[in-house]
Amino acid sequence: MGSTDKSPSKGDWEDIVARKRRDQTQAIEAFLQRQRGAKSFSDGIDIEICSLEHKELFEALASGNLTAESVTLAYINRAIQSHQKTNCLTEILFEQAIQRSRVLDEYFRREGKLIGPLHGIPVSLKDQFDIKGFDSTLGYVGRAYSPSTEDAALVTLLTRLGAIVIAKTNVPQSIMIAETINPLWGLTVNPNDPSFTPGGSSGGESALLACKGSMVGFGTDIGASIRQPSSIMGLYGLKPSSGRLPYYNVSVSTEGQEHVPSVIGPMARSLHSLTEVTKAVINSQPSDLDPRCIDLPWRSHIYDDFLTRPLTIGVISDDGVVKIHPPFQRALDDLVGKLKSAGHEIVTWDPIGHADIIKVQDKYYTADGGEDIRRDIAVCNEPFVPQVKALVDRGEPISVYQYWQLNRQKVSLQKMYLDHWNKTRGSTSGRKVDILLAPVAPHPAVPHNSVRWVGYTKVWNFLDYPALAFPVTTVSKDIDIPDPLYKPRNPTDEWNWNLYDPEKMHGHPVGLQIISQRLQEEKVLAAAKVFETLLS
Amino acid sequence: MGSTDKSPSKGDWEDIVARKRRDQTQAIEAFLQRQRGAKSFSDGIDIEICSLEHKELFEALASGNLTAESVTLAYINRAIQSHQKTNCLTEILFEQAIQRSRVLDEYFRREGKLIGPLHGIPVSLKDQFDIKGFDSTLGYVGRAYSPSTEDAALVTLLTRLGAIVIAKTNVPQSIMIAETINPLWGLTVNPNDPSFTPGGSSGGESALLACKGSMVGFGTDIGASIRQPSSIMGLYGLKPSSGRLPYYNVSVSTEGQEHVPSVIGPMARSLHSLTEVTKAVINSQPSDLDPRCIDLPWRSHIYDDFLTRPLTIGVISDDGVVKIHPPFQRALDDLVGKLKSAGHEIVTWDPIGHADIIKVQDKYYTADGGEDIRRDIAVCNEPFVPQVKALVDRGEPISVYQYWQLNRQKVSLQKMYLDHWNKTRGSTSGRKVDILLAPVAPHPAVPHNSVRWVGYTKVWNFLDYPALAFPVTTVSKDIDIPDPLYKPRNPTDEWNWNLYDPEKMHGHPVGLQIISQRLQEEKVLAAAKVFETLLS
Repeated sequence: MGSTDKSPSKGDWEDIVARKRRDQTQAIEAFLQRQRGAKSFSDGIDIEICSLEHKELFEALASGNLTAESVTLAYINRAIQSHQKTNCLTEILFEQAIQRSRVLDEYFRREGKLIGPLHGIPVSLKDQFDIKGFDSTLGYVGRAYSPSTEDAALVTLLTRLGAIVIAKTNVPQSIMIAETINPLWGLTVNPNDPSFTPGGSSGGESALLACKGSMVGFGTDIGASIRQPSSIMGLYGLKPSSGRLPYYNVSVSTEGQEHVPSVIGPMARSLHSLTEVTKAVINSQPSDLDPRCIDLPWRSHIYDDFLTRPLTIGVISDDGVVKIHPPFQRALDDLVGKLKSAGHEIVTWDPIGHADIIKVQDKYYTADGGEDIRRDIAVCNEPFVPQVKALVDRGEPISVYQYWQLNRQKVSLQKMYLDHWNKTRGSTSGRKVDILLAPVAPHPAVPHNSVRWVGYTKVWNFLDYPALAFPVTTVSKDIDIPDPLYKPRNPTDEWNWNLYDPEKMHGHPVGLQIISQRLQEEKVLAAAKVFETLLS
Repeated sequence: MGSTDKSPSKGDWEDIVARKRRDQTQAIEAFLQRQRGAKSFSDGIDIEICSLEHKELFEALASGNLTAESVTLAYINRAIQSHQKTNCLTEILFEQAIQRSRVLDEYFRREGKLIGPLHGIPVSLKDQFDIKGFDSTLGYVGRAYSPSTEDAALVTLLTRLGAIVIAKTNVPQSIMIAETINPLWGLTVNPNDPSFTPGGSSGGESALLACKGSMVGFGTDIGASIRQPSSIMGLYGLKPSSGRLPYYNVSVSTEGQEHVPSVIGPMARSLHSLTEVTKAVINSQPSDLDPRCIDLPWRSHIYDDFLTRPLTIGVISDDGVVKIHPPFQRALDDLVGKLKSAGHEIVTWDPIGHADIIKVQDKYYTADGGEDIRRDIAVCNEPFVPQVKALVDRGEPISVYQYWQLNRQKVSLQKMYLDHWNKTRGSTSGRKVDILLAPVAPHPAVPHNSVRWVGYTKVWNFLDYPALAFPVTTVSKDIDIPDPLYKPRNPTDEWNWNLYDPEKMHGHPVGLQIISQRLQEEKVLAAAKVFETLLS
């Protein structure tokens, strides 16, 4: 193929892949060689550092017990091991991260204080966040060797806050599917079972974070992409409303499709991480860097209010289309039981209009007839990932006039849901529902190429409501026995039901989701705190 | 024409027009007859009531010195006179308004207090705001006799706050031009000179408010439509950022084109009115009624801050395309002089990128190739207003993919402007610019069919920045002498320059504009307060 190259610009796609992977290997090797030369670290210490909770790590840095450099080196080592296990990394920023850690240490020595609330915290970013000098490929071979010329707004803020970006992580080609595979970097696997997906599209992040190869990650979410991989890997993940965190200079496919907005959000193995980083970014005036951000600082009074009173919680256990696997039902039932015992009020939430929402929503993703994705694929005629091909072949482009009608339908459905929320009341208290509790997905980790239904997550993108995924339990082959008499309602439901394999899934995490109304990030984070206390 | 009717649905357009106008005449006549029968009011008392300032009126209502009914009747009388002079009204809500005023009076008698902060305030609405049982025509014959089935969110809130809607007001066909004419209701004229336009598209509002036929009006603005008619008629008008005031159930053409957003905003003859009504609506949780509204209550600390410190003010006196008429330069120079004397800091603002913004912006309005407007025109084959025809014939539709690229360009330009704002500093203080001061238009009131350039207003729609128009002075034929040597820079500039006629324009109002960054409505209202004090 290389010899008869007819691609329009960048040369043979396989050559690019080989070169890109070689570069990555060399960057990793350079670090490892240096480490071998330095001999100052052992794996044992690395594991100890990477096992510290966010708060402990921060305290160790603040007291001078740990240097930013030692933390960075430990996390890089761990990230490399994670990568070897799961193929989760893309761009390697080790050299830059070490340099930055030394600047922070120097600052700490000189000033006697930390540079900001994320001083020395190792961070990883999905391969969409632009970092000057590095690629943002979105899993397209054709975007390789086109390094960004400036940083994403988020990168600017994280750096200012003291965080250290150590690497970028893998995504599916186009980022429009909920697993993690592309022709450039290949397949990212689930560290708990390589035959399983770590989810997607932020699956490089979920694999890396679950292996403790990073403290905080940032993903993006236009349907499931932060929450589903978080649920699969037992992490916390927040999909905020659009306009709360800065999207500027985050590369994305179907860019300009702002109407079911893709958003950025943090992922982490603790709620404390998630809350700290969200608060820190929101409070650093992202609206000064991103014209789409809303000037809306963190509202402590909203957060605190939730911690100090009984909540009214709407519970969705079935979206009416795809029934959840038994461990999700158990997770819900257990948590609902604890919530009731603690004095919170439970309302059964009618998932009204979800099917209509999904029907309209799906039209947005391919309103251009797949042109945006096709153009990226065409850059060097790389092969399509089959699920991406299926997506772009879904239909013809619609006209701008039809597109505007779609926007009208969207607003009507959003209004319908707003009214539904305002009308639904706690039967005891008569109070408005504070938050919703729902499964993240109908299944835990599944084999590669199995994800077919993200209806539990995507409706919240359409409504632009914040939604937070949190781990609740793990699959137990002994308890989570499927009902042998269950009759699937439709082919997707049947597919999902047949996926359930308590033997193979045993021990895999099970995540639920907290949803609130638009721009109420404080509420989902506070509710998660309440739930965490009950679950611990 | 009537006998050979071939229109698809509603019948001959001229028949509809005749019927609609007859209905209107009858509704007005019914009120007048009743008044003649009642004999309880004289024109003199009406004029007195309608001349009260907002605050005085509110106090008279609060003390029981005036009833809501007497105020409503006075304003209706005055609105009828305004209409006879200018043809400003469309839907007549007199009967409903009187009923409502009696409910308010009854409430006041019973409870001994006002129902809300707008108790008894007469309000008029541009013929886009849906009111159950009444048409929202947008100046299309084809939308006549299609009464709304529910109220606009704003109408719900205004009613809850105590305001009384007395009538709807005229707009241009499609609302996409900046004058006020359509085949259904005809031409609205300037009360100061019927050969002049009252501006548009909220020109029915500006004519009515200037005649004191209403206390507060609501218009919409997608390029100039609140501010330009306010400037022409010597009124205050606020175009907020999108998401601050509720647009839900406001009919609009090119609906679904959300990317250069049309917004609603108040118009009034006093800044006090404008501020009170804006604050009241913002504080009544519009986000509970409109899914596009942001949960962002009125921020007194931002407002108060501006009243108590020197401001850094960027001044635009020329957009580089169309030079402003002499009285606008005088208005700017005088105000700048006063601001300097009062200790405020003036920065010359570079209108960087305005030409690029307008180039991209204009593509949005007709991205559908004019299909949306053509469909409305086709309903009963009504004639096109020539300017509307010119608009829809401007170009072919673009594809959704191209539309998405337009959105990308939009974000880049918004980011460019955000950076420009953040970088520009007061040379003395080094402080960031607080607000911009600019002309609303390059001209005061002009003859019908003369408006060609709304570049001074439309850039702020594209950027989604709040902008407030306020009256500063009037044209003086004795002072505002044009430079006879001025060489126009381009055909539009030449057209505008040739429009200037100090003799005919003598006494017509001249308005300037205050602009702040996105969602900072408090800042433009506070700056207007500062300016008002200096100008009085």
